[in-house]
Amino acid sequence: MVKASIVGATGYTGEEIVKILTRHKGAKIVSLTAKIEQEVFIDDEFPELKHVAHIKCYPFEKEAAAADADVVFLALPHTISMKFAPFFLEQGKKVIDLSADYRLKKPGDYEKWYGCKHADEGNIQKAVYGLPELYEKEIKAAALIANPGCYPTSVILGLAPLLKSNLSGSDNFIVDSKTGIMGAGRKATLSFHFPECDGSVWAYKIGQHQHTPEMVQELARISGRKTNVLFTPHVVPSSRGILSTIYADVGKGIKLKEVVDIYTDFYEKSPFVRVYPEKKLPRTKDISANNFCDIGFGYNAESGKLVIVSTVDNLLKGAAGQAVQNMNIMFGFDQKEGLI
Amino acid sequence: MVKASIVGATGYTGEEIVKILTRHKGAKIVSLTAKIEQEVFIDDEFPELKHVAHIKCYPFEKEAAAADADVVFLALPHTISMKFAPFFLEQGKKVIDLSADYRLKKPGDYEKWYGCKHADEGNIQKAVYGLPELYEKEIKAAALIANPGCYPTSVILGLAPLLKSNLSGSDNFIVDSKTGIMGAGRKATLSFHFPECDGSVWAYKIGQHQHTPEMVQELARISGRKTNVLFTPHVVPSSRGILSTIYADVGKGIKLKEVVDIYTDFYEKSPFVRVYPEKKLPRTKDISANNFCDIGFGYNAESGKLVIVSTVDNLLKGAAGQAVQNMNIMFGFDQKEGLI
Amino acid sequence: MVKASIVGATGYTGEEIVKILTRHKGAKIVSLTAKIEQEVFIDDEFPELKHVAHIKCYPFEKEAAAADADVVFLALPHTISMKFAPFFLEQGKKVIDLSADYRLKKPGDYEKWYGCKHADEGNIQKAVYGLPELYEKEIKAAALIANPGCYPTSVILGLAPLLKSNLSGSDNFIVDSKTGIMGAGRKATLSFHFPECDGSVWAYKIGQHQHTPEMVQELARISGRKTNVLFTPHVVPSSRGILSTIYADVGKGIKLKEVVDIYTDFYEKSPFVRVYPEKKLPRTKDISANNFCDIGFGYNAESGKLVIVSTVDNLLKGAAGQAVQNMNIMFGFDQKEGLI
Amino acid sequence: MVKASIVGATGYTGEEIVKILTRHKGAKIVSLTAKIEQEVFIDDEFPELKHVAHIKCYPFEKEAAAADADVVFLALPHTISMKFAPFFLEQGKKVIDLSADYRLKKPGDYEKWYGCKHADEGNIQKAVYGLPELYEKEIKAAALIANPGCYPTSVILGLAPLLKSNLSGSDNFIVDSKTGIMGAGRKATLSFHFPECDGSVWAYKIGQHQHTPEMVQELARISGRKTNVLFTPHVVPSSRGILSTIYADVGKGIKLKEVVDIYTDFYEKSPFVRVYPEKKLPRTKDISANNFCDIGFGYNAESGKLVIVSTVDNLLKGAAGQAVQNMNIMFGFDQKEGLI
Repeated sequence: MVKASIVGATGYTGEEIVKILTRHKGAKIVSLTAKIEQEVFIDDEFPELKHVAHIKCYPFEKEAAAADADVVFLALPHTISMKFAPFFLEQGKKVIDLSADYRLKKPGDYEKWYGCKHADEGNIQKAVYGLPELYEKEIKAAALIANPGCYPTSVILGLAPLLKSNLSGSDNFIVDSKTGIMGAGRKATLSFHFPECDGSVWAYKIGQHQHTPEMVQELARISGRKTNVLFTPHVVPSSRGILSTIYADVGKGIKLKEVVDIYTDFYEKSPFVRVYPEKKLPRTKDISANNFCDIGFGYNAESGKLVIVSTVDNLLKGAAGQAVQNMNIMFGFDQKEGLI
Repeated sequence: MVKASIVGATGYTGEEIVKILTRHKGAKIVSLTAKIEQEVFIDDEFPELKHVAHIKCYPFEKEAAAADADVVFLALPHTISMKFAPFFLEQGKKVIDLSADYRLKKPGDYEKWYGCKHADEGNIQKAVYGLPELYEKEIKAAALIANPGCYPTSVILGLAPLLKSNLSGSDNFIVDSKTGIMGAGRKATLSFHFPECDGSVWAYKIGQHQHTPEMVQELARISGRKTNVLFTPHVVPSSRGILSTIYADVGKGIKLKEVVDIYTDFYEKSPFVRVYPEKKLPRTKDISANNFCDIGFGYNAESGKLVIVSTVDNLLKGAAGQAVQNMNIMFGFDQKEGLI
Repeated sequence: MVKASIVGATGYTGEEIVKILTRHKGAKIVSLTAKIEQEVFIDDEFPELKHVAHIKCYPFEKEAAAADADVVFLALPHTISMKFAPFFLEQGKKVIDLSADYRLKKPGDYEKWYGCKHADEGNIQKAVYGLPELYEKEIKAAALIANPGCYPTSVILGLAPLLKSNLSGSDNFIVDSKTGIMGAGRKATLSFHFPECDGSVWAYKIGQHQHTPEMVQELARISGRKTNVLFTPHVVPSSRGILSTIYADVGKGIKLKEVVDIYTDFYEKSPFVRVYPEKKLPRTKDISANNFCDIGFGYNAESGKLVIVSTVDNLLKGAAGQAVQNMNIMFGFDQKEGLI
Repeated sequence: MVKASIVGATGYTGEEIVKILTRHKGAKIVSLTAKIEQEVFIDDEFPELKHVAHIKCYPFEKEAAAADADVVFLALPHTISMKFAPFFLEQGKKVIDLSADYRLKKPGDYEKWYGCKHADEGNIQKAVYGLPELYEKEIKAAALIANPGCYPTSVILGLAPLLKSNLSGSDNFIVDSKTGIMGAGRKATLSFHFPECDGSVWAYKIGQHQHTPEMVQELARISGRKTNVLFTPHVVPSSRGILSTIYADVGKGIKLKEVVDIYTDFYEKSPFVRVYPEKKLPRTKDISANNFCDIGFGYNAESGKLVIVSTVDNLLKGAAGQAVQNMNIMFGFDQKEGLI
């Protein structure tokens, strides 16, 4: 049995990792920790876990979190993970970091978008970007996984086959995303107070969201070309689910059937990507609380634009589910173990 | 008192007109009709109208609907309005048509997008596009108003000041809209069954929505140039509110402050358009159940794109509210009468 | 013009008073204050008020709040109102207190249920319980109104006609209420964080809610008999609306038609109470954002119980709407002014 | 492998059985059928099943539905199941009927509450009421399971320990239930059209819901005494989850701790019932999409009433989950197989 330690277990993402590992045949939880004052049973914190996971969660101390673990999940806010990841790596643990701390390869990008200097530059280059559909081999060999952001997961999976094909006509993309509110975490703020969100939709951080450089970096890595992304995230009144509508230039004369075929082939061996046929479009409802990424298409001949609709659950394929998918690859399990 | 007849009073839009006219100081309802088998009190059909509007709604007959009216509101599906509008016009009534039937000036457009030949081509050119912020003078003189669609209202108000300025760099626009479900009308279908919508977001009719030619026609009319719109509507789990995110090329070196000033000036005399300052963005919650259109902005220097966020209530500024605003202008009332 | 001062204007209830008074023909706002650090335009705090109420809200100081006012609305948490009400009364102002501070006639009740000693016992007996359907005459003459709680409004209006009739067979009632979340106020807490509420229903404070003694006191006052209420409030995933299901013993052999008639007669002159006929039951949707109280009935012969369903909007008939209805009575306006 | 046939696979309940059996280690689906015109892949009907269950669903024919099956799940409306159950039983199949057809032991009850004569009286007495927490032994030996209704499951599990204890002071119960909308099935009607439900709460069929006699029968069977239930169901704006608030006389002087202990002991061996300690109350969110029944308590000394809050997912513990739990018992699997 692979022994897992979850740091940050009292957040929504931490809870999802607990839920998944509870069903996992080859892994077990050996440590739950969080930034809390007093120990708490995780099923007192999350009553839906009663009779499922009656495990104590302790105030975080790195030594205890490392002690019995083979793998450490860091379900922490950015700028916190990088303080502790080096310690776990030195102890010989595999580390799967769900924060943004090891995603951006250029330390300058990190400082620009996250507002502080990186505290562990040495490990940035060692970190593997944990998108299994593209980097399975690297993940298998990695000690440190930079688990992708939720928005970038939807966007990169939505664009990778296009970038690898000969259809892409430009490297400028517009990404218009709609997100459920769990993506904002388990922290009460007026913006996400129920009556403020109920029945409401709004855009935020237009062109300034910190997931932008992650998209740009990874799309450029796939295409080998300089890339620009104009990213507009929106909040919609649901708990779960991101739906990204991606506008890409492909020119006139494209047939959607051809696009569907390219994507279907590309993801043939990817159990968690579901490509929709022409005339069908995905709904967030269908990826809600599961680890799938659903992708559908529209095409506008007049403007020569392909419209790619890509949707993932913020907490699963966009965070905890993908993290366990990475763990499965790292430890030789079937990718789907615990996840279907 | 202006005497109003509402045809199609048992739909969501019809009900809103009833609600507004009940508060209106200068108008009164003289006839409610609908495609129903038996007469019904409108407050039995819509219990929220009890003690507000205890009026009988009758099975539609054109003569009775016309009898005492000065103005006839046609809150009907497209293809139906054009069968009856000529009759009301011949009787000397003012007609405000909330359907799409008189919006498209080229009959070929109508046939292409609405799937049938137009039945009243003679009146198309006489119809005035009822967007008061742009065509107040024409509305005042009109006998027949083509009341704008909900999506186009958000888009045209969102783009008009830009098109009239010297900032606009291209005539190709991407419009990514998110709509609440009342826009789909008061008819039960599996797609809009509560459990299918709750927590779900999806795109539909990408590049193929019938409101596209209306946007294209009206934007071109403003700019005087050929225009292309790639329009992607989405359904979000709320009842009311459309939020359109519009991507427009403005090139590098723009200052948002300048954009805000242009819009503020443009709408200085428009009581129902609210321009947001830099760094603030509108929410559908704030235009829900009122007649405002709220507009905010983002700018991405790298791509040279201005992002305009424009939001209206589907039923009010997007339908019934705008219809009464038009009536107010036609009959010499203050635009705001009954609407604030 | 009646000059109104609103203390606590940045809460949901305060905002609703602003909205109503803006539409009111005989009143105007002369002061907005709140517990804030710095002055703010009320339409910056609540963007839905843009173009409707562009008024400055200042950090609360009692002298300034009193200065030009004829009437002072205290939209404050309990225990705060009683600190300031005496001052306003001494200045000769009419005071409408939306908190619980002057509702309970026995100071011991206040201490027991609100956890602190009452600070202004002298004014408790002078305060008039502001339920216009029952106490219009007293309200007209009052200097201090104790505006009823939201739950009690639904329950007292739901039971008053029964208690005044000869049908009531017992003075023990079960009240099972379901509330939307705006009733909890405009303060972010984890319990009311969107993802915690979305799709969730729960009971709280069973038999221990602080609105219980208010119901008991007022029901006993109507019936003249000792009364017991077992009150179970529940939270449901909506923003607005309280629906109280009230179980009352009436014995066998009752006809619902008779009950409907009793209620209809009782509320004949009450513009805001709508009695439903047999076989129709009210929905919170129909009282949402308006000042009505809708009441419907079920009857179970086997248990001899009448089931009364009574529903109000938490913020309107349950708070701000009722407060203005009281103001209308106090200053000689039509009860409906500003409210329909 | 146990071979399962699901009749009515295109409803919400049918889909849930498919999802559960897909995860089940000891069962496999051999037939999906429904009242449809043409065969359809079940993952075309329910896109969330893509990559999970790519199985054809055929127009129902009883011979084909029976052919390879060991067990037949009838996920059908009432009055339909009883037409086909005899056939499957004659073929030697185990039958788990999710409709109401075999729940009421007195055929007169069936006719009274379901409006038609029972078509298979002979099998009624053979049917075992499939509530595993009470009738595990009988279920193990049954050929025909009458799978309990969703409301009755919450109520019977909520009352059984009390009835079996010496605390119960009366056999008259008030049950006030709140349900999510999936319980109404996958059929579009105006009542459950999204904008009609969003933000709305209402009661229906007060004292007249067809689940009442099922509760009465089963509660009386447990207590051995004549029982009365006044049942008031309500619709709340969520997709999943029933929360039943049950009022029971227990007299003065009870301690909640004692009640909690009685329930905890009673359900000690029941993996799917979770008893809440004093001062904690269940939320539907925590039983949403799982097979648990969560039970919490309040007590009002003044009225001598115990308030039991019992909550289940309509489709899982209230239907499909319980059906598979029954199958697990019938075929010797662990009760939890496929369900946790």
